[in-house]
Amino acid sequence: MTKYKELKEVCWRANMEIPKNKLAISTFGNVSSLDAKERIFAIKPSGVPYDEMKPADMVIVDMDGNRVEGKMNPSSDTPTHAVLYRSLPGICSIAHAHSAYAVAWAQACRPIPIYGTTHADHLAHDIPVTKVMSDKMIKGQYEEETGHQIINALKENNLSHLDVEMILVACHGPFTWGATPDRAVYNAVVLEEIAKMACITEQVNPDIKRMKATLINKHYQRKHGKGAYYGQINK
Amino acid sequence: MTKYKELKEVCWRANMEIPKNKLAISTFGNVSSLDAKERIFAIKPSGVPYDEMKPADMVIVDMDGNRVEGKMNPSSDTPTHAVLYRSLPGICSIAHAHSAYAVAWAQACRPIPIYGTTHADHLAHDIPVTKVMSDKMIKGQYEEETGHQIINALKENNLSHLDVEMILVACHGPFTWGATPDRAVYNAVVLEEIAKMACITEQVNPDIKRMKATLINKHYQRKHGKGAYYGQINK
Amino acid sequence: MTKYKELKEVCWRANMEIPKNKLAISTFGNVSSLDAKERIFAIKPSGVPYDEMKPADMVIVDMDGNRVEGKMNPSSDTPTHAVLYRSLPGICSIAHAHSAYAVAWAQACRPIPIYGTTHADHLAHDIPVTKVMSDKMIKGQYEEETGHQIINALKENNLSHLDVEMILVACHGPFTWGATPDRAVYNAVVLEEIAKMACITEQVNPDIKRMKATLINKHYQRKHGKGAYYGQINK
Amino acid sequence: MTKYKELKEVCWRANMEIPKNKLAISTFGNVSSLDAKERIFAIKPSGVPYDEMKPADMVIVDMDGNRVEGKMNPSSDTPTHAVLYRSLPGICSIAHAHSAYAVAWAQACRPIPIYGTTHADHLAHDIPVTKVMSDKMIKGQYEEETGHQIINALKENNLSHLDVEMILVACHGPFTWGATPDRAVYNAVVLEEIAKMACITEQVNPDIKRMKATLINKHYQRKHGKGAYYGQINK
Repeated sequence: MTKYKELKEVCWRANMEIPKNKLAISTFGNVSSLDAKERIFAIKPSGVPYDEMKPADMVIVDMDGNRVEGKMNPSSDTPTHAVLYRSLPGICSIAHAHSAYAVAWAQACRPIPIYGTTHADHLAHDIPVTKVMSDKMIKGQYEEETGHQIINALKENNLSHLDVEMILVACHGPFTWGATPDRAVYNAVVLEEIAKMACITEQVNPDIKRMKATLINKHYQRKHGKGAYYGQINK
Repeated sequence: MTKYKELKEVCWRANMEIPKNKLAISTFGNVSSLDAKERIFAIKPSGVPYDEMKPADMVIVDMDGNRVEGKMNPSSDTPTHAVLYRSLPGICSIAHAHSAYAVAWAQACRPIPIYGTTHADHLAHDIPVTKVMSDKMIKGQYEEETGHQIINALKENNLSHLDVEMILVACHGPFTWGATPDRAVYNAVVLEEIAKMACITEQVNPDIKRMKATLINKHYQRKHGKGAYYGQINK
Repeated sequence: MTKYKELKEVCWRANMEIPKNKLAISTFGNVSSLDAKERIFAIKPSGVPYDEMKPADMVIVDMDGNRVEGKMNPSSDTPTHAVLYRSLPGICSIAHAHSAYAVAWAQACRPIPIYGTTHADHLAHDIPVTKVMSDKMIKGQYEEETGHQIINALKENNLSHLDVEMILVACHGPFTWGATPDRAVYNAVVLEEIAKMACITEQVNPDIKRMKATLINKHYQRKHGKGAYYGQINK
Repeated sequence: MTKYKELKEVCWRANMEIPKNKLAISTFGNVSSLDAKERIFAIKPSGVPYDEMKPADMVIVDMDGNRVEGKMNPSSDTPTHAVLYRSLPGICSIAHAHSAYAVAWAQACRPIPIYGTTHADHLAHDIPVTKVMSDKMIKGQYEEETGHQIINALKENNLSHLDVEMILVACHGPFTWGATPDRAVYNAVVLEEIAKMACITEQVNPDIKRMKATLINKHYQRKHGKGAYYGQINK
């Protein structure tokens, strides 16, 4: 019997949301789920198709990404997750989707401009994109460096990971996170929707500018600010 | 026992058409349903996912948007609905979708030009878009002002809300309405389809002009004019 | 008891392929099925949603489009179908879809250039588009004139309706036909696919030219020519 | 009783993945499966709709494409498959899809530039496109020549069919292959996804360049190189 049964179950369920929400085909993408107290996390095994994957296949690794429990190899992106968990206090799950529009913006190496309230309901900033990695980083600990690129992009854009729970890794694709696995996957779904809407917006009006700051703040604050009045939680 | 049981049921059913018709993901969007006699309306609770929502969760509010019955907070867009019900006599339901193509045109701050008969079968005008809201309005009663922006856009374009049952709120998304909840949601479905077709039309021919007026009038009148001969109702 | 029971059944089944193949939403589009011997045809009733429609709801009309049997009004496009049946010998079914890409090309008033073998497997020509109708025709017998526009477009492009079983009506949408209802609907499905592929092709390469004539002829002839060797029929 | 029962079953199952993965409509596309020992292969019958097709309908042909067993005509593309099996040692299955984005790039006569890691996870090169066939080849043994065009494109681009398991035939569509039928179809799914992502990438950033070589090599090598650490196979 494993002491991580529940964590594996939670992690598996979150991973299964990836194909269900059409966020990736085949074996692409992965979700991890942290047990902050035990300082381990569960993650998808590498290269396993979603429709063949069972809860017991989830791999338990420590905060350096070393396997603690499980027969399979963890996702090759495990060191990226490990860096993020070590660097971003308060997040308990990370999702890496391969959805078409989010990947396209990442491949285009462009942040997604904030064009509307759907975007502002979730974050008050353009969705950032990392720099393209240097050859030295690529040839070094590539997956760890991917994590560092994410941290650096947040820093350079002066963004908190608690306010901005989604990012694009240049030439690669989206990473999202949150306080729960549900939230991390939800952010991947929202990011794909925002990416699609922004792409069509520019097709319809190539000269469109970012939404005005007052409107950005209004929508973000009514949902996330001190006097937030959106949803059921604050009342 | 509630006296609004049937109204809540009707409102819930209309809201459930939103995800069924892929007009929004997650908790986005909302539909309300008016009881004109009782001067109250039912509306979706704020921030509740469609797949967890029950008829009893619908919130009953008065014509100023104050809660009359229900445990949950009503949609944060409730004041917008209230303004529209107070200002637009004859409408009994309002739908606010977050579908990708309609949102994209709204974010692009462009009215949708009338390019074909699919559009003209439903309205004889470009689908209007509101002005971007002033900072003063945004910082004031934002959701009420959204309703006023809609009313103003109809006025400035010299349009009746009985002829034009759909509009785009700039930087936000579509609002549609009608004499019944079925009609309000139907209009949201049609608007998304028109928005998609218009986007592709411009991709295929960037120089295309609006359809000629005689053809617009012919299609609109054969369905909605005095001698209408489309459908089963008039014969 | 009706003597047209089987014809209505066949017509209903063909109509139900429209929503099944996502060729139209709501009540849009229609399919008719001819009994050439009896000189009548069955057609979808006007403005009835597909999911509420029963075989018995199909309307039987004569070759001038006058109702012969059925309680409902026939499709408002009935006179268009009648003109086509009277003018195009050998066709036994007509489908009018409202699918997004075919409608977009029709709204863009452009014929669909023949860019590949998927297209050439079905016809050896660009998919023609009618001229925009004159005001006089629109204000006259509009639906009949729509049929005449189709006939004229075939003539002006020197095309036989037996070789080219699909056309775009400018500002409106696609009409397809064939020797059977299955074939008419199949052509609507194929037209939508060709329309989508051609749109993306131009996005990927705005300077692309029509496929060379030898390749067009090869693909068309191997399927439809004298020595055709595609499929199971000729052997 | 046929000695090829299992091969037909395998081939049929692989063909059924085509409509399941939306890689073609109607009867379009085909998959073949080789028995390298017996020097025969099974292939889809020509022009048969997927939803009517049974395992016993698969046709067994020899290495020149001549029918060995089966009542139906084999796919008209059979000689293309035969040429590929004779020329590309080690492949045991070929899939020919008609998916919209891959066909669009083929019709646009452009190789798909390598823009991201989704692409580099599968091949370290742009996805090649053949030259447009000469009139002489078209008028000769067209389907065989299609095979030769593929072989030539691989040669001219200095590519091994073991490294690059997918190609676009100009004006036609994608051909993919692999050591197993699962792999051949998988490559068709991946190619469509890459084609879609590349198209959107260019829409979002028309000036985007190919991903840098170090990143291409990193992703390709971590999955396919000597020290590969992606997936479950090597550990």
